[in-house]
Amino acid sequence: MPDGNRQIVLTSRPTGWVAPENFELREGTVPEPGSGDVLVRNIFMSLDPYMRGRMNEAKSYASSFEIGEVLQARVIGEVAASKNDGYAAGDIVFGMLGWEDYSLAKGAASLRHVDAELAPLPYYLGALGMPGMTAWIGLREIGQPKAGETLFVSAASGAVGQIAGQIGRIRGCRVVGSAGSDAKAAYVADELGFDAAFNYKTAESYLAALQERCPDGLDVYFDNVGGAMLDAALEVANPFARFVECGMISQYNLVEREGVQNLVYLTRKRIRMQGFIVSDHSDLLPEFMAEMAGWLESGEVKYRVDVADGLENAPATFIAMLKGENFGKQVVRIGPDS
Amino acid sequence: MPDGNRQIVLTSRPTGWVAPENFELREGTVPEPGSGDVLVRNIFMSLDPYMRGRMNEAKSYASSFEIGEVLQARVIGEVAASKNDGYAAGDIVFGMLGWEDYSLAKGAASLRHVDAELAPLPYYLGALGMPGMTAWIGLREIGQPKAGETLFVSAASGAVGQIAGQIGRIRGCRVVGSAGSDAKAAYVADELGFDAAFNYKTAESYLAALQERCPDGLDVYFDNVGGAMLDAALEVANPFARFVECGMISQYNLVEREGVQNLVYLTRKRIRMQGFIVSDHSDLLPEFMAEMAGWLESGEVKYRVDVADGLENAPATFIAMLKGENFGKQVVRIGPDS
Repeated sequence: MPDGNRQIVLTSRPTGWVAPENFELREGTVPEPGSGDVLVRNIFMSLDPYMRGRMNEAKSYASSFEIGEVLQARVIGEVAASKNDGYAAGDIVFGMLGWEDYSLAKGAASLRHVDAELAPLPYYLGALGMPGMTAWIGLREIGQPKAGETLFVSAASGAVGQIAGQIGRIRGCRVVGSAGSDAKAAYVADELGFDAAFNYKTAESYLAALQERCPDGLDVYFDNVGGAMLDAALEVANPFARFVECGMISQYNLVEREGVQNLVYLTRKRIRMQGFIVSDHSDLLPEFMAEMAGWLESGEVKYRVDVADGLENAPATFIAMLKGENFGKQVVRIGPDS
Repeated sequence: MPDGNRQIVLTSRPTGWVAPENFELREGTVPEPGSGDVLVRNIFMSLDPYMRGRMNEAKSYASSFEIGEVLQARVIGEVAASKNDGYAAGDIVFGMLGWEDYSLAKGAASLRHVDAELAPLPYYLGALGMPGMTAWIGLREIGQPKAGETLFVSAASGAVGQIAGQIGRIRGCRVVGSAGSDAKAAYVADELGFDAAFNYKTAESYLAALQERCPDGLDVYFDNVGGAMLDAALEVANPFARFVECGMISQYNLVEREGVQNLVYLTRKRIRMQGFIVSDHSDLLPEFMAEMAGWLESGEVKYRVDVADGLENAPATFIAMLKGENFGKQVVRIGPDS
């Protein structure tokens, strides 16, 4: 057994932007599995915008991270030692584990096996994981895009946005994306097959950018950002548009949130705006996995992952992701594949 | 036949608040019905907040009022002359007619008979008319209140709010209302049976006022006002709350609309916010009329009407209603019942 276990601990709660001082890297010990437990050597961990909410004091839907405790994340790892009949050393597993080299899954809670042959391991934190299922559920339950409709996706090159746009394309929609650089906009248009995309950071007006690219208006908005882009989307929306309220990353680090002025359109355009959380729909996981695996295998869906190397870089990578500096689904490599 | 027909014409479009200068009272002539037409002597006309939108240039869901033309309104009147087999002189009818003493319904378009025995005539512009059906449809299609849930209604003593709250009470909800004076708040609590109500104009904080009166949070918000009250309702909302976006009267006369900051709750609380327009659901009119007539007859639903006297006072009454100075459903008496 190894004798060191690096761990990243939350030392304070951020006000506004997350800062390096909110984290501390400490040397812990490798826990000993008891009966029914599984010890996992962590390989990849997922960094996701919703985790910003968990850094606040009990204000998000997910429970708060605790001060002085190891932060949690979705992880892909290898079983290092097992006292659980369902898992054997060497198995590749998914789990809700820690920002650390080794995590103990008590009673194997949250673990499940993943098929390392089917897709690269980080995909189980992205296209085949929570972000992919978030896109799939949001469109299935709320967006309900129909062939010929226009779907707009913000944060289009992000973990969820990539999948949302490609599902829209598969469903026969005109798909438009916004992203935070020319390279990201080019990626979703050229590689992922979006019909149009733009760099919101250089757009003179969100409204004009949307109007130009949505000549028939907008029927479904997959909203990952909130704020001023949401205002523009409300203005461009067609009657009976559906707004999938997946997240509002533009607002999470503001002490004073931006106001959205165009809600008056909800009534006159009969718009439905609806939030959701993917974990409410976990009964649909098998159906999601089967459909997404098929799309990945056939090449109908592509997926870009942004890998940061080293657990020690996780805090800086998380902060950069909140600022939109990642390009694709952000993961951190904690250890070697095998 | 009478020889005079007073008419109120739109002379200019308002920017911000509507002003008396936007209207002109002119002396017109009584139109002559041709084959299939019906001439109506107008008795009551309805003033409704949505009409503010029709004063703008083609920005609302209803078509714009035209400059230089007689304004339109829902009217209850008496047939003065008919060249249509469906209507005879003396019949009491509802129609989308004009701000004038006499209106011509070409081919009897928009007319229908009303039962003057069943309810006071203004009820057909309120509880038994578009506002009542708006409350009924909004709760049926979007709010879907269940027994034991908390329903909050803004503009609770208004044309729609009175009905929305009473339907919630009939459905077994805890019903809370906000209104613009102590007398209005007392009316909805004491006369209409709301469980609690408050005067938003004297409340120190909308949030505190709601939290105090919704100890179990808020499951359905019937929103007639938008703006800062919507922000407070988002904060008090329970998971899976439904927001019936009926109107936003607090915003209609602002040149720069207020921003709503709490939309981040949509995702974490899985809130559905949905706008609607009652005329999309006109197939349900018979079902609505039957249920509402029953409630009125049994006394389960009460309804307050605010009657302003005289067509010449319609512009000032409309402006006052937009400022919340009415108490109950606003109508204007144009002529005597018979």
